[in-house]
Amino acid sequence: MRYFIEISYLGTHFSGFQIQPNARTVQGELEKALSLILRDAIAIQGSSRTDAGVHAKQQFAHFDFEPIEQPNDLVYKLNRFLPSDLAAHALHALPDTAHARFDATHRKYEYHISTIKSPFLIGKTWFNSRPVDLNKMNDAAKLLIGYHDFEAFSKVKTEVNNFFCTIYEAHFSINETGFVFHIKANRFLRGMVRALVGTLLEVGYERIQLSDFLEIINSRNRQRAGSAAPAEGLYLTEVGYPTDYFKRK
Amino acid sequence: MRYFIEISYLGTHFSGFQIQPNARTVQGELEKALSLILRDAIAIQGSSRTDAGVHAKQQFAHFDFEPIEQPNDLVYKLNRFLPSDLAAHALHALPDTAHARFDATHRKYEYHISTIKSPFLIGKTWFNSRPVDLNKMNDAAKLLIGYHDFEAFSKVKTEVNNFFCTIYEAHFSINETGFVFHIKANRFLRGMVRALVGTLLEVGYERIQLSDFLEIINSRNRQRAGSAAPAEGLYLTEVGYPTDYFKRK
Repeated sequence: MRYFIEISYLGTHFSGFQIQPNARTVQGELEKALSLILRDAIAIQGSSRTDAGVHAKQQFAHFDFEPIEQPNDLVYKLNRFLPSDLAAHALHALPDTAHARFDATHRKYEYHISTIKSPFLIGKTWFNSRPVDLNKMNDAAKLLIGYHDFEAFSKVKTEVNNFFCTIYEAHFSINETGFVFHIKANRFLRGMVRALVGTLLEVGYERIQLSDFLEIINSRNRQRAGSAAPAEGLYLTEVGYPTDYFKRK
Repeated sequence: MRYFIEISYLGTHFSGFQIQPNARTVQGELEKALSLILRDAIAIQGSSRTDAGVHAKQQFAHFDFEPIEQPNDLVYKLNRFLPSDLAAHALHALPDTAHARFDATHRKYEYHISTIKSPFLIGKTWFNSRPVDLNKMNDAAKLLIGYHDFEAFSKVKTEVNNFFCTIYEAHFSINETGFVFHIKANRFLRGMVRALVGTLLEVGYERIQLSDFLEIINSRNRQRAGSAAPAEGLYLTEVGYPTDYFKRK
C-alpha cells in the first residue's frame, strides 16, 4: 500500500525538508520515527522541498508499507516519537500509483512580515519596520499572475529543466502585527518566494518602479532581482491534490 | 518625573520578572537598557512579579528620571537595545506619587492549553491532550468569584500579610487549538493561577467533585490543591489602572 502522511513543522531548527548527511532534516526525522514504529526501513517522498528555516503548516509525504490496520493509532504513536517541532496530522491509504510530489496540483505559501516588535513572533515572522507602500506592492504582485518564466527569482544551482510556473494568486494582506504575502502556484522554484518578496519590497520602498519590476521578470537574471527575504517569515500553507484524491482506493 | 513603561515579554528564557544575581530577568534586562540609554543608574518597580517562564502580553513598570523630551524616541531606542524576547510599547509621564504596583486596580491572566500537537505553539501553551469536562471546570471556576482566602493556592514561601483576593472573572473558553482559562482579580498570590489551573483540571478529569473543590478552597492548605500547571501556558495579559490614570499630569 502507498500511504500519504500529512505533517506540519516549525522550520527554525531544521536544515530543510530534504535528507542530507550530518544535518537535522524533516525527512530524516520522519523516516527515523516511521522506521522505528513500523520496524522496517521506511523511505519517504515529500510533496515540496522546503529550504532550511522555512516552516510548513501543511506538507505531505508518501511511503510504501503493508496494510496498516489502525491509521489513527500510527499518527498518535508518531506524534510521541517525533520531536516537538514536527507533528503528524493524518494518514491516508492510496493506490500504488499515487505520488505526493507529482500529483500535487498546487502549493500555497505565505510570507509574514511584522512591523512592530513582538516577543511572541520570534522566529515566526520577519521583523521589518521600514515603511512600505502596500498598494504599489499589490500592483506589482498582480503582474506575477499567469504563466511566466521565473528564472530571475530562482536559485542559480537548481535541477529543473525549465523555469515556467503558473501563478494563480499573488497579493498582500494586512494583519494585526504587520502584513502577509500570499502566493498560489502549480509549482515553485528554489528560493522563489523569498526572492519575490525581497523584490516586491523594493517596489514597496519605492526604490524601483512597476515597470522595473516587469523588466526584472523578463530579464530572467537572478542578479537583477532583490535580495531574498529571510527564511523565518516563510510558510508552506497548503499542498493541493485533485478532488476526491484521498477518497480513492 | 515618574515614568510608566509598558512592556511585553516571552517568559521562556527569563528567570522571572524580579531582578536576582546571576540570572537573566526582565527587570535586569530593562534596567540595563534604560541605564545605558539614559546614561544613569535606573531602577524600576514592576506592577506584577511574574515567575520564571511566565509570559506577559502587558506589564508596566515605573522609574524616575528628569523630563524626557521625546518619549516615543526612547521607546524606539529601547526596542533596539532590548533583546528580541522583551519589547517596549509606550512611555507615560505621571506625577511622582504614581506607583505601578500599588495603583493597579486589577490584573488579568490567561492560561493556554493545547489539546493537539502543534509545532507553532512550542513554549507558548501547555500541550495536554487528556480529555476534560469543560462544563464541570466552568462550574468550579464560578466558585472562585468573589472575596476569598486563597492560601490553598499560594506558594508556601511568600511575603504577603494575608491571602485574600477578590476574583472578578474566572472561566474557560475554547479556541482553535484547545482551551484557555481566563481570570481577573485585584491581586494574585505567588503561583496562584498555575495551582488553580492544576486543581480545576482535576475537576475536569473527574478525579475530584465540585464539593471537593470548594472544600480545598476552604482548607487553606496548599497540600490539598492539585499540582501547578507548567509556566509555559501562563500569560499576564492586562494590568488595569483607574480611569484616566495615564492622562494625569
